[in-house]
Amino acid sequence: MRVLILGGDGYLGWPTAMYLSQRGHEVAVVDNYFRRRASTELNREPLVPVPNLHRRAALWEALSGRRVKVYIGDVCDYPFLLQTFREFGPEGVVHYAEQPAAPYSMMGHKEALFTLTNNLVSTANVIYAVKETDINCHIVKLGTMGVYGTPNIDIEEGYLEVEHKGRRHKFLYPKTPGSLYHLTKAQDGDLLYFYCRIWGIRVTDLNQGPVYGIVTDESQQDERLFSIFNYDDIFGTVLNRFLVQAVAGVPLTVYGKGGQTRGYLNIKDTMACVELSLRHPAAAGEYRVFNQFVETFTVNDLAAKVQEAGAALGLKVEINHIPNPRLEAEEHYYNPAHTGLLSLGLQPHYLRAAVLQEMLQLVMKYKNNIDKNLIQPAVKWR
Amino acid sequence: MRVLILGGDGYLGWPTAMYLSQRGHEVAVVDNYFRRRASTELNREPLVPVPNLHRRAALWEALSGRRVKVYIGDVCDYPFLLQTFREFGPEGVVHYAEQPAAPYSMMGHKEALFTLTNNLVSTANVIYAVKETDINCHIVKLGTMGVYGTPNIDIEEGYLEVEHKGRRHKFLYPKTPGSLYHLTKAQDGDLLYFYCRIWGIRVTDLNQGPVYGIVTDESQQDERLFSIFNYDDIFGTVLNRFLVQAVAGVPLTVYGKGGQTRGYLNIKDTMACVELSLRHPAAAGEYRVFNQFVETFTVNDLAAKVQEAGAALGLKVEINHIPNPRLEAEEHYYNPAHTGLLSLGLQPHYLRAAVLQEMLQLVMKYKNNIDKNLIQPAVKWR
Repeated sequence: MRVLILGGDGYLGWPTAMYLSQRGHEVAVVDNYFRRRASTELNREPLVPVPNLHRRAALWEALSGRRVKVYIGDVCDYPFLLQTFREFGPEGVVHYAEQPAAPYSMMGHKEALFTLTNNLVSTANVIYAVKETDINCHIVKLGTMGVYGTPNIDIEEGYLEVEHKGRRHKFLYPKTPGSLYHLTKAQDGDLLYFYCRIWGIRVTDLNQGPVYGIVTDESQQDERLFSIFNYDDIFGTVLNRFLVQAVAGVPLTVYGKGGQTRGYLNIKDTMACVELSLRHPAAAGEYRVFNQFVETFTVNDLAAKVQEAGAALGLKVEINHIPNPRLEAEEHYYNPAHTGLLSLGLQPHYLRAAVLQEMLQLVMKYKNNIDKNLIQPAVKWR
Repeated sequence: MRVLILGGDGYLGWPTAMYLSQRGHEVAVVDNYFRRRASTELNREPLVPVPNLHRRAALWEALSGRRVKVYIGDVCDYPFLLQTFREFGPEGVVHYAEQPAAPYSMMGHKEALFTLTNNLVSTANVIYAVKETDINCHIVKLGTMGVYGTPNIDIEEGYLEVEHKGRRHKFLYPKTPGSLYHLTKAQDGDLLYFYCRIWGIRVTDLNQGPVYGIVTDESQQDERLFSIFNYDDIFGTVLNRFLVQAVAGVPLTVYGKGGQTRGYLNIKDTMACVELSLRHPAAAGEYRVFNQFVETFTVNDLAAKVQEAGAALGLKVEINHIPNPRLEAEEHYYNPAHTGLLSLGLQPHYLRAAVLQEMLQLVMKYKNNIDKNLIQPAVKWR
């Protein structure tokens, strides 16, 4: 299958490119290097330096004999995007080309406007490019479980059947996102759902929980193929942050009470979920939603697991409850459905002690790269 | 009260300015003349030519002795908006500065992107300007009943209490908009609701039904103070279109079966609703939603009423069911709540025969201005 990956330079984009390439798909990646520029400007460099896309594609080709095509440009630039679609002719497009950090979106007016316009204009452009070139091209958009917030009822997979005053209606599941970033990921979904209804486009929205992990089967062959791995307060996800804090000897930064529950998954499962979605596309006009995670933990659970795994490696890991920079419920009901991807055949990786130890050992190799100044949260919601 | 009206040149903006000014409020208007430019570029000129804002403000001052301050600029230009907020210091801001036409938003990529970015960036800028200058400044945003679509259950006023698997949660009422324009009006509401939760801003969202009417008590004193009154397929609302078609001797263009039911209101009631909202502001952190209409009709009801009112004036009005350019249910359940504004004291104007005849007579005065080429719908959803 010909798959175009938008945001192909990112934490998920590049390993997805290799994963699909390894499995015989014809892959092209698009990126404008926004995330690299922002990491440098904000001094939030990744743990392991990452060569640019052209170099990584060349390395991957030398290693695997498989070619990944590289397009450098902005998905918000419609003529560029349209030309890329025309040239490559994708049967599936994976849309990762959004500003992905909640704290970044809450920094100030400039970052808020960038997040809002980038995430919605990129999505609108993808929709129009699909309509213009091949209405059957399947859009797989990375969403987030964070769009749902923490309602006091079960979170269903995409839709909610409501009974009200003796009548029934099925709605798209209502969203209560907790940051502007998360809000834009509800809004991009609303855009896609609308054009499914109007034009009959095919869309899968992957509402993903926080991802953890450093390497995939493909990237572990050469550190220059690693993902962009951030451990800082802005671009790092919670478990990745904790792993680096444990190695750095800095107390784990649990925000508030630590009772915040989320659904987590290993980066290897993200790869599998995206390929499963591509291999089983949504029907014409279908806005299909999967809740993409494999197990739920509280932040306190994660901290305790990292502490325990660290102890087994001789690391003395302390846990620190710090004032929560975000506005979120710190103790709440949380029971999200997640059967769709399992029914497509997902074989989950679970967060076992051995997995944590393996990740900690890898971080220990790069201990000297850790900048301890990037660990305390600098962006407050209020 | 000092009230800043964004989109002060528009169909609702200018009469709102005069209405509030007449009642002793200190009023300033902001506009970038987008709607005028688009009307000219698309050859959808209003029925009655309208002088620019500076001239209308001068006319109004000569007539009433009251001053309306004029700022020409773009609400999407944040430095301009911030400077305007700083200079004028509004206690309330009425946000009409959005691209208001569903057909415009469905014309093509350029118009879609303009609608999306203009409507969301303008709203984000208003939120930031309020936070930056006076967090208590009350934002009154014009919404639309069209955000709800036509669900098979009652439409409540803003929120929906859901019981699901034995647990309960109150959600913002889920939206199923029928055009990109309507979608952006759900998305701007989501933005406002989010910053109510995070920063405690005060917001009233007026989910308005289609408005009809040409003059208000203030504008009827001089035709140069009239609203921008569009009767075309892009910017005209349905009843206003029918009035002009009746006078022009063109069959009324009922889209499809004509069973589409909506809640309607007279432009005079819009004025009253906005002032009532301003005089009774939302609490800090409250995202207050009013469903702003006074009675529901099907399109067939409206056509029949115009036919009858026309007959009384000697007009032979024909009704034509034409293929629906939109994608919408043409027969559906519709029972929206609308008690909020009545409880604040709204005294509704109803669509009586005399009201229709008065409007028809006014249109007849300008019969020679009617361009019959603007009557058949040119923009299709699909």
